[in-house]
Amino acid sequence: MLWAVVLAGGVGSRFWPVSTPSRPKQLLPLAGDLPLIRQTVDRVLPIVDAHRIRILTGERIARPILDVLPMLAADHLFVEPRARGTAPVLAWAAHEIARREPDAVMASLHADHVIAPDAAFRDLLVTMAAASVRHERLFTIGAVPTRPETGYGYIRPGEPLDGGEAREVAAFVEKPPPDVAAAYVRDGYLWNTGIFVWPVRLFLEELKRHTPEIAEHLPLLDRGEIAAYFDAVPPLSVDQGLLERSRRVAVMPSTFQWDDVGAWDAMARTRPTDEQGNVTFGAAHLVDAEGCIVWADDGAIAVFGAKDLVVVRTAGVTFVAPRDRSADLKKLIEKLPRSLVNPEEG
Amino acid sequence: MLWAVVLAGGVGSRFWPVSTPSRPKQLLPLAGDLPLIRQTVDRVLPIVDAHRIRILTGERIARPILDVLPMLAADHLFVEPRARGTAPVLAWAAHEIARREPDAVMASLHADHVIAPDAAFRDLLVTMAAASVRHERLFTIGAVPTRPETGYGYIRPGEPLDGGEAREVAAFVEKPPPDVAAAYVRDGYLWNTGIFVWPVRLFLEELKRHTPEIAEHLPLLDRGEIAAYFDAVPPLSVDQGLLERSRRVAVMPSTFQWDDVGAWDAMARTRPTDEQGNVTFGAAHLVDAEGCIVWADDGAIAVFGAKDLVVVRTAGVTFVAPRDRSADLKKLIEKLPRSLVNPEEG
Repeated sequence: MLWAVVLAGGVGSRFWPVSTPSRPKQLLPLAGDLPLIRQTVDRVLPIVDAHRIRILTGERIARPILDVLPMLAADHLFVEPRARGTAPVLAWAAHEIARREPDAVMASLHADHVIAPDAAFRDLLVTMAAASVRHERLFTIGAVPTRPETGYGYIRPGEPLDGGEAREVAAFVEKPPPDVAAAYVRDGYLWNTGIFVWPVRLFLEELKRHTPEIAEHLPLLDRGEIAAYFDAVPPLSVDQGLLERSRRVAVMPSTFQWDDVGAWDAMARTRPTDEQGNVTFGAAHLVDAEGCIVWADDGAIAVFGAKDLVVVRTAGVTFVAPRDRSADLKKLIEKLPRSLVNPEEG
Repeated sequence: MLWAVVLAGGVGSRFWPVSTPSRPKQLLPLAGDLPLIRQTVDRVLPIVDAHRIRILTGERIARPILDVLPMLAADHLFVEPRARGTAPVLAWAAHEIARREPDAVMASLHADHVIAPDAAFRDLLVTMAAASVRHERLFTIGAVPTRPETGYGYIRPGEPLDGGEAREVAAFVEKPPPDVAAAYVRDGYLWNTGIFVWPVRLFLEELKRHTPEIAEHLPLLDRGEIAAYFDAVPPLSVDQGLLERSRRVAVMPSTFQWDDVGAWDAMARTRPTDEQGNVTFGAAHLVDAEGCIVWADDGAIAVFGAKDLVVVRTAGVTFVAPRDRSADLKKLIEKLPRSLVNPEEG
């Protein structure tokens, strides 16, 4: 059967001041009326029953996550005692799923991605699940680029696996500079979505072979020593720790809309715009404004005569920046007083 | 003796959302730590004792004005039952002062102007007071222009009155378009500050001669019928109603800093700027920002990578506009919901 695990551990400083450590991006309605994590779960429910869905996250947001996912219970959460990257927590999930259902196929999703249409995504997951078993491959989704994005990693596809769309992975490549990104798009590279589908048995075999620094600690989990496991494993992403090491990796191209909503600017792609290209949330009043992204969840915002600005007000903090600087938010945040960046600790 | 009356009836929508009908511009600290009206009174106190100072204003802000002027009492206020322009209320003030001291000289000041240095201003008032008696003239201050401002009226100076600086007024001219403003500056025109000094006796004589539509109703005031007086007089500015009609008008040039703080943009002239030309008030945090005017009196504001913006947050409302649009604020306000423009009525 197909299981779905949802990576929901991100702290999401990129949507500051709306996103905070206790209200990260995946809990925000950045692409509709519901939080991204709720959209993520709703999207797969028609093909994955709720009792085969797991959420991987940290203690701080376990409660808020359950609040927006009424179809799940506390035992659907894998709560990481400390953040160690995606490899240790996905290994934990695969290990537990394999214990219950050795032949399970597991889809690893991100709680904060925007995907549409939902049906096309589900179709692809089902296709990948079958292909991952048939070809014995760890599958990743490679989105066909629609622009020379410099904020994503890319995948260079290799030989076709069979008569279908699936390809071997020739190489994973890092986020490129603009001219290189343009060449990648021209040459048929795919965006690395970080969305995976694999048989849990194959994943654990490959982990044992290529990532012993994690695999050797899995027995701790069988004894319920979760904290000891996370203390023992090194911090590692599943990309670096396994996919870039394994030779049993394949990519499935997709043409549905996929966006990792990496910064405020992305809302112009993920939410509806008005005729002047403005995106608004809450009590936003725009006059002579063009291409602005305005988020008002603490009082009203009036924007007059401005172009391509991000204007945000939430919980006592107002944030203003040109859209093309919104991806550099970390540069701002590191210069702000701590109490402003993280009001819960203030 | 020299008396000072302060025109403080303005409603000041130009500093929305900080200025509202019950907190107009003169009550805001737009040029320092104290409200403009308090600076105005403090400026003349060394030459005009508090008991010879009067404030001309409306009922709505009488109380807030007294709150920021602890040196004055309620009977220092002339409270207009309805706004009828400057001529009726200045006639009322002159009439009352003349009743108590027929030989008084009266300076008419604005509660919302920025002037510096204070000592130069006081020196000029004293000089004008003497000159107004000696030459029997209604004196106005003409500021020597420092830029081709299109937001001010101008004065074309005529013949010198004596060996000093004082000149006859050849003409009052309206706010000019940019090319005309540049010509005015070149040709030695002066900004019409609207700050006047005159012997009350002369003012009332000239009023009787040129503005009978007001002067004929002054006896109502002697019977305490203030409301009847304001019902009877036409709405009229003292410029149009008297100064442009009288031939006994003179202008005294001044070179101190004078600004009527007509829009948010003006704060870059009236408050200190940082090295990047930013002006801030309250909890404003600017990173990579240049030429921005940021007012935070309801929570914090972070501005990142922006140039020449006005960003304001007060009482539940955030306002953002490019500086060069801040003078058009009325265009925005007329399109906003009433409850946002005037929260007291909302």
